[in-house]
Amino acid sequence: MVDHEGGDILNLARAIFAEQPFTQFLGSELANISQEKIEIRLPLKPQLLQQHGYAHGGVLSYLADNAITFAGGIALNGDALTSEFKINYLRPAKGAVLVARAETLSSGRRQAVCRCDIFVEEAPETLVAVAQGTVVPVG
Amino acid sequence: MVDHEGGDILNLARAIFAEQPFTQFLGSELANISQEKIEIRLPLKPQLLQQHGYAHGGVLSYLADNAITFAGGIALNGDALTSEFKINYLRPAKGAVLVARAETLSSGRRQAVCRCDIFVEEAPETLVAVAQGTVVPVG
Amino acid sequence: MVDHEGGDILNLARAIFAEQPFTQFLGSELANISQEKIEIRLPLKPQLLQQHGYAHGGVLSYLADNAITFAGGIALNGDALTSEFKINYLRPAKGAVLVARAETLSSGRRQAVCRCDIFVEEAPETLVAVAQGTVVPVG
Amino acid sequence: MVDHEGGDILNLARAIFAEQPFTQFLGSELANISQEKIEIRLPLKPQLLQQHGYAHGGVLSYLADNAITFAGGIALNGDALTSEFKINYLRPAKGAVLVARAETLSSGRRQAVCRCDIFVEEAPETLVAVAQGTVVPVG
Repeated sequence: MVDHEGGDILNLARAIFAEQPFTQFLGSELANISQEKIEIRLPLKPQLLQQHGYAHGGVLSYLADNAITFAGGIALNGDALTSEFKINYLRPAKGAVLVARAETLSSGRRQAVCRCDIFVEEAPETLVAVAQGTVVPVG
Repeated sequence: MVDHEGGDILNLARAIFAEQPFTQFLGSELANISQEKIEIRLPLKPQLLQQHGYAHGGVLSYLADNAITFAGGIALNGDALTSEFKINYLRPAKGAVLVARAETLSSGRRQAVCRCDIFVEEAPETLVAVAQGTVVPVG
Repeated sequence: MVDHEGGDILNLARAIFAEQPFTQFLGSELANISQEKIEIRLPLKPQLLQQHGYAHGGVLSYLADNAITFAGGIALNGDALTSEFKINYLRPAKGAVLVARAETLSSGRRQAVCRCDIFVEEAPETLVAVAQGTVVPVG
Repeated sequence: MVDHEGGDILNLARAIFAEQPFTQFLGSELANISQEKIEIRLPLKPQLLQQHGYAHGGVLSYLADNAITFAGGIALNGDALTSEFKINYLRPAKGAVLVARAETLSSGRRQAVCRCDIFVEEAPETLVAVAQGTVVPVG
């Protein structure tokens, strides 16, 4: 996310999300964004599946990476990137839409540590993966 | 990967790779595959980048997830999936082609533990991310 | 934890905790235990510190490992061990007592996935590390 | 590790290792140290075991944390700490002595990323755990 003195970090986050080619290629939507939480939705078009009809693990890991980056970037108030994360897959992700929700647990000058939960959206919402990672300022 | 009594696990791995919709959507190629190592190549088309022109972190995490799954599935000799992994991004991934190489460190009846190194292919090859994860048999 | 048909998994967990030599060597106490949560307390005697007077990272990682094992073992209802975890250190852990709280996010026949938060106990409680890992049944 | 302009980072690492109370409490020895690799040995006295007679997972995670810190600190050439790591346990660790070997995969101004392999030392050496983590400069 681009640092912008005096600017609105949330508007900047929205602008950057809209500009990410990979995010647009997959079809992600920035569903909710605030200082406390970020939520990304991803409709599961057929190209995002693996050979058994579930969301590919790489789709879930993309969601974790991206939700963690944006949650941490907002906490760090500027241009940021995920430096590392880990993800546990809990059960096969089958459904129409995935939702990733991330929040920042701790942030300082040099890093933010965030968690992300990924759900299949259809009621009852089902938790399908959990992640934890580090975001650092760019530059 | 589909278990196939008496079959060739490497041929099965190739067949499954060719059938994964997400893998085909991104454009991955199964470059090398053996009992010891697996190598996946991914040409960096513009849709796989983030806003600064580097490979998106989600592309690298997809490669780690997928290379680990196939390395572990070959070691487990059948249908398998990645249950968890962690990835560290080392430097921005800029170049024409990414290469992910994974190997199995340990495997038993219930799990295989694998490592994956991801490079930008252009000489001199540059290490851009490292991952470590667990693969379990399906079913 | 020892599987004990018809027995009380919580009493078994208490018995196993009391028998772990390393846990006793460090001085851990099983503060609270239920089907939903486990809490381990560890008074910070001088031998548990690093060279700057903070809790050693290895002490925090022990707490994460152990709290995750017991949370997952209770969910799996028997003898269990941590197969992997990751930990992020958030800030220096300075104080008289550490508290680790773990809960299970998902459990099945083959694994439980748990999270653990570690605090310095003195008011106001301060979050010093967070972890996430996998527990599997023994044998 | 304490930065010391004009000093010898390896001598400093040795001095800091000797001063860590927790390291001394467990009985670790700095077996080998160079710019490229670090090796820590830990005799498995009874207090370091769990209830089945194997090394406690917390002992292995301490070794991973500590070997990664020292490998990364040498690469960063100064005072450093592990900010995060993940560990996979591969098999029960039973034997007289554990050996942890860590190396740095990548280092820059802000972080070093390291891997660590932990073995039971008795011939034939057996790999019992693998870890990967991040080290950052202090202050």
